[in-house]
Amino acid sequence: MLKPEILDPQGQAVQRALPRLGFDGISDVRQGKRFELEVDGPVDEAALTRIHELAESFLANTVIEDFTVKVEEVTEAAK
Amino acid sequence: MLKPEILDPQGQAVQRALPRLGFDGISDVRQGKRFELEVDGPVDEAALTRIHELAESFLANTVIEDFTVKVEEVTEAAK
Repeated sequence: MLKPEILDPQGQAVQRALPRLGFDGISDVRQGKRFELEVDGPVDEAALTRIHELAESFLANTVIEDFTVKVEEVTEAAK
Repeated sequence: MLKPEILDPQGQAVQRALPRLGFDGISDVRQGKRFELEVDGPVDEAALTRIHELAESFLANTVIEDFTVKVEEVTEAAK
């Protein structure tokens, strides 16, 4: 996501359009990106450290963006 | 996120670049969007229903995209 101090014209455009579309009560909208990475093998401490480096150095532009890394289990049924 | 059956050239480009950048063991990358909505008042069942409608009709293109709605508490410190 863009850092809070960085203007987000896309998010603002969405927010301004909402009342016109009948959706009130949303005071702020911010738009960002998400990446889903499928990891071979166990997502252990070492894998997470590498993914954090990858996100910081390659996926996110840390001059203007914040990022978080979350782990989600893939169930057999969802594969 | 794009539905699993929809090609994701952006995600594929990222995935192909990773080994070159020294990151191995990532078998798939998919890129998508996320929106952070700040809601006035309580996020109750009614508010969630409206946000779900909003996401379905306006934020996501449900022909090619899936979406999920998640609620996150904003702590006073993070404001």
